[in-house]
Amino acid sequence: MQGTPPPQQQQPATATYPPTERTVPTRSPDRAAYDKDLVHAILDEGYVCHLGFVRDGAPVVLPTLYGRIGEVLYVHGSTGSRPLRAAGRAGAGLPVCLTVTHVDALVLARSAFHHSVNYRSVVVHGLAHDVTDPEEKRQALDALVDHVVPGRAADSRPADRKELAATAVLRIELSEVSAKLRTGGVNDEPEDLGLPHWAGVVPLRKGYGTPLADPGLAPGTALPGYLAAL
Amino acid sequence: MQGTPPPQQQQPATATYPPTERTVPTRSPDRAAYDKDLVHAILDEGYVCHLGFVRDGAPVVLPTLYGRIGEVLYVHGSTGSRPLRAAGRAGAGLPVCLTVTHVDALVLARSAFHHSVNYRSVVVHGLAHDVTDPEEKRQALDALVDHVVPGRAADSRPADRKELAATAVLRIELSEVSAKLRTGGVNDEPEDLGLPHWAGVVPLRKGYGTPLADPGLAPGTALPGYLAAL
Repeated sequence: MQGTPPPQQQQPATATYPPTERTVPTRSPDRAAYDKDLVHAILDEGYVCHLGFVRDGAPVVLPTLYGRIGEVLYVHGSTGSRPLRAAGRAGAGLPVCLTVTHVDALVLARSAFHHSVNYRSVVVHGLAHDVTDPEEKRQALDALVDHVVPGRAADSRPADRKELAATAVLRIELSEVSAKLRTGGVNDEPEDLGLPHWAGVVPLRKGYGTPLADPGLAPGTALPGYLAAL
Repeated sequence: MQGTPPPQQQQPATATYPPTERTVPTRSPDRAAYDKDLVHAILDEGYVCHLGFVRDGAPVVLPTLYGRIGEVLYVHGSTGSRPLRAAGRAGAGLPVCLTVTHVDALVLARSAFHHSVNYRSVVVHGLAHDVTDPEEKRQALDALVDHVVPGRAADSRPADRKELAATAVLRIELSEVSAKLRTGGVNDEPEDLGLPHWAGVVPLRKGYGTPLADPGLAPGTALPGYLAAL
């Protein structure tokens, strides 16, 4: 994701995450942002994060669902899964890096070098801790379901004792966090502007298709408003 | 991404990546696939991968563009970037994990526990090596541009000496690789089927918006066919 960044959008003055050595990028530091509202918005728009941890000295990056309650992220999985077992064993918490990325547009420059994409990403560094408090675990699982579709947790059967026991939940505090963004248009070199190559931005669009009802729905079960409104 | 997986789609018999201890998941092993054509298709459909590496003993996961030539992936960045500098220093290669994920649909079950998403992901474990051969570097950069829009590398100004010198390229062999997929519908428990909650699948759609031309295009520069066809 190269090229000279365009001027950053102005963000309203709000609470920010204090930058650390790990969250100040060595490249394009002007693309980095620490605004909490911006970070929350990028996190809330995603479905899947990429969770990184170290296993036998080597990195592992797995896609997984997540949920957010305030300044805490939750991920979940089977109590048999590797990272969740590792976090359970790690008394001080399992070092993780959790990243969420949206690709918003393709940026086609006249020069190969300045090709890029417009994107918004959040990188969270921290320690993942096994959630042992039953009430926090319940709230975390609700947050995970509501992250997929807001309002959905209240319209589904909650996890029972057996399901809760089979599910491990990790908590990761939002404290060492940064967003990184590229927005705007093409940044070609002045001497390339006369080249005969088309240059510009191709937006990527996301949307929802028609919900496909399970064939065995109980009679009279209508599509809920929170899905019709998607 | 919980829940009992649906039956896997039949794949034609083709070359596969040999499973290893790292690429056989502890959970839902029936969702894992090693078919090379399937892996290539998932990789080629993505724009951004999540590249994981270890820095000072902690995991780092960064989004980055990538390109593929046969059984080799390439990522690039400034020669000043941390992972690329680290790979240059690591004579034996930098251990990385490179993951690409597509979320295809939201899966809403009657029970909170069986909520999921349909997805296709590829996880690549390997060693990243700095590309030093100038010809391989050029081909890798072409692959990176063509990965954003197929055919684009031939319709842009190639990198010059200065740009090539400023760009580091890493090569990662596709050898320890797996795909993981969830497809199909809702997998509720039999005793939940009569619950009055709507259940089903909400497809996620992706597409392209109208290309926005750079305001300074050379006169007479038309939208190329490979973009009009998107």
